[in-house]
Amino acid sequence: MTEIIATYLLHNEKNPNKKAEEIALGLTVGSWTNLPELEQSQLRKHKGRVVSVEEFPSEKEDQSIIQIAYPTLNFSNDLPAILTTVFGKLSLDGKIKLLDLQFDEGLKSQFPGPRFGIEGLREKLNVYNRPLLMSIFKGVLGKDLTFLVEQLKQQALGGVDFVKDDEILFENQLTPFEKRILEGKKVLQEVYDQTGHRTLYAINLTGRTSHLKDKARKAAQLGADLLLFNVFSYGLDVLQELREDNEISLPLMAHPAVSGAFTSSQVFGLSHSLMLGKLLRYAGADLSLFPSPYGTVALENTKALSIASELTGKDSFKRSFPVPSAGIHPGLVPLLIRDFGIDSVINAGGGIHGHPDGARGGGLAFRQAIETNLQGKLLAEGAENYPELKLALELWGNPEVTV
Amino acid sequence: MTEIIATYLLHNEKNPNKKAEEIALGLTVGSWTNLPELEQSQLRKHKGRVVSVEEFPSEKEDQSIIQIAYPTLNFSNDLPAILTTVFGKLSLDGKIKLLDLQFDEGLKSQFPGPRFGIEGLREKLNVYNRPLLMSIFKGVLGKDLTFLVEQLKQQALGGVDFVKDDEILFENQLTPFEKRILEGKKVLQEVYDQTGHRTLYAINLTGRTSHLKDKARKAAQLGADLLLFNVFSYGLDVLQELREDNEISLPLMAHPAVSGAFTSSQVFGLSHSLMLGKLLRYAGADLSLFPSPYGTVALENTKALSIASELTGKDSFKRSFPVPSAGIHPGLVPLLIRDFGIDSVINAGGGIHGHPDGARGGGLAFRQAIETNLQGKLLAEGAENYPELKLALELWGNPEVTV
Repeated sequence: MTEIIATYLLHNEKNPNKKAEEIALGLTVGSWTNLPELEQSQLRKHKGRVVSVEEFPSEKEDQSIIQIAYPTLNFSNDLPAILTTVFGKLSLDGKIKLLDLQFDEGLKSQFPGPRFGIEGLREKLNVYNRPLLMSIFKGVLGKDLTFLVEQLKQQALGGVDFVKDDEILFENQLTPFEKRILEGKKVLQEVYDQTGHRTLYAINLTGRTSHLKDKARKAAQLGADLLLFNVFSYGLDVLQELREDNEISLPLMAHPAVSGAFTSSQVFGLSHSLMLGKLLRYAGADLSLFPSPYGTVALENTKALSIASELTGKDSFKRSFPVPSAGIHPGLVPLLIRDFGIDSVINAGGGIHGHPDGARGGGLAFRQAIETNLQGKLLAEGAENYPELKLALELWGNPEVTV
Repeated sequence: MTEIIATYLLHNEKNPNKKAEEIALGLTVGSWTNLPELEQSQLRKHKGRVVSVEEFPSEKEDQSIIQIAYPTLNFSNDLPAILTTVFGKLSLDGKIKLLDLQFDEGLKSQFPGPRFGIEGLREKLNVYNRPLLMSIFKGVLGKDLTFLVEQLKQQALGGVDFVKDDEILFENQLTPFEKRILEGKKVLQEVYDQTGHRTLYAINLTGRTSHLKDKARKAAQLGADLLLFNVFSYGLDVLQELREDNEISLPLMAHPAVSGAFTSSQVFGLSHSLMLGKLLRYAGADLSLFPSPYGTVALENTKALSIASELTGKDSFKRSFPVPSAGIHPGLVPLLIRDFGIDSVINAGGGIHGHPDGARGGGLAFRQAIETNLQGKLLAEGAENYPELKLALELWGNPEVTV
């Protein structure tokens, strides 16, 4: 019998063993001990099972962690059915948080994982030995295509590997989707011809749910590089369907917009590692953005690392790029590489555009910081040779982490 | 200029005025005071605006409520774009909860609201002067069609208006979707021929997102009565697309599965009234289920009432039926009618199936309780004439609320 195992955190549950039994039955066959033996034998393969119950008493609030196994026979092999089964009614049932889901191999085989993953994206860029660098557009709302293209060009000239749309840039007359792709492509080719450096542009896929696939296919036909997607404003299954469509076949960059609504509480909702890590990877995100542990919108270090670990850990799927975001400047590069390794994307907004030499200077400073750090040197040493890095460290500081 | 106004609750925000200004700019044009005048005049129509800031100091945790207006020009007229704009990045930004969204009339005109609403559903049932009664299947996982149809029949014989599928019943070999519709229809017609009472069956619409419309159209062709939908496992826009499809044209019953993940916290996420009330109504749900304030999985009274108020209050759309659920037995009918009025659905599981006379007896007891209460009598009085009600009150109690 194949199962999915859900791990829950409970707060102030007086009898976690009883609660676990109630969940295992209540969310599967409903009742058990009072059933006639014949019925029990019919229903056994549908019955939930308590895997473990651990109690952590505390002065403040008792915690317990329980694991329940649900037969995969009970649901169809899609994320809406799985989430409804393991955390549908239960999400409404007091202080309970879904920490993790363990899929068995049979169930995993029903999910696609990333189409490209870390290796595939590296091949597209022909960059293998360093973290990738991403920057984002700044203040493009209300601006025209000329403005946007120039900003894209400056970022690309700085040597970034990806530029992503702002997640709040939707279909609009000034910078429409298809024109952004075509004009973006043109300017990035110009930069490539000039510098030999390839920058990829992640275009924001937005609109009504049933139009997304057609729009994404059109993007692919027009030669788009990647799709940025606000997956949590739509649904994980929508992401998965974009991944599975062979006519789209573009890398998918998942944005965490709205996800704070269900990950932020310690007692309610779903864990960061599950939603921004494991399920995004299973559904097919090639990159997952999440708050870095360093910035103003900071996520606890252990949580940010737990996301990265799910995205890149051993599993049946290709690995997805962790993209810790927000509050990133060149001085943080050694910390980022220490925490997230070279198989990550360093993503900056203000830390690129706010550079005294503009976005080009910002990109250069990051690339210089990466190079310096990977050579085993302190950034201060690199700054002696690199004026852009020097300026960045002077402006934003240099925490100097020795690895 | 048309706007959407978002209301947020902040905890422990030291300078809510400054924070409000940061949000109004950060989620629209990015910056303002340092922009040249020409650019300001170009961007003015895109700029967010602080509507109000109220502070509620407290010994424990300071609270503040801020309102920000976002120009509708900034986003496309769909819920994913709206949620990403008003609570995308912001959901990740510390202790902030989205309490409400006020759509102006122009924006409202882009949303459908319920196709049937309270009046339309009453017309289908030809019942106008009492709360409707719903019951749910119990323990159908692993059971065959004969079992399910017999259970449906017993519930219908008890005089319930709706029977809904269990939300965790997905596509399966024993009771497949299309067969449930056809066999359910047959037995409900038999009951109607026998008793003159019409019961409608809400079938659970499940599966991959892009298949839902076709499946729902097929359901309509086969004569299904209503669709039950786990909207929060999919996405609000998916619900809206089901509503907008004229080939489907079936009442939609929204289930709150998974919604506890983002409504339960006092400090994070989105409010019950917004998600289970206003947005479900705008997107087109004809009925919205939510935890009742009485049961074991209880929601605070004010919150449950705030949902109902959004579903039925004055607005541009048809009204949706509030369906307070869980822990409901016949003795609670006076309380339900007092709190939710007659334009609500009384929904019971154990309170129907657990009746000593079975589901038929349970349904009768509820109908008797409703009748008695609407006659202005105490349930104890009704119990003198109605043996099913008497048994129910003996078993589950009779809080006797005088209205």
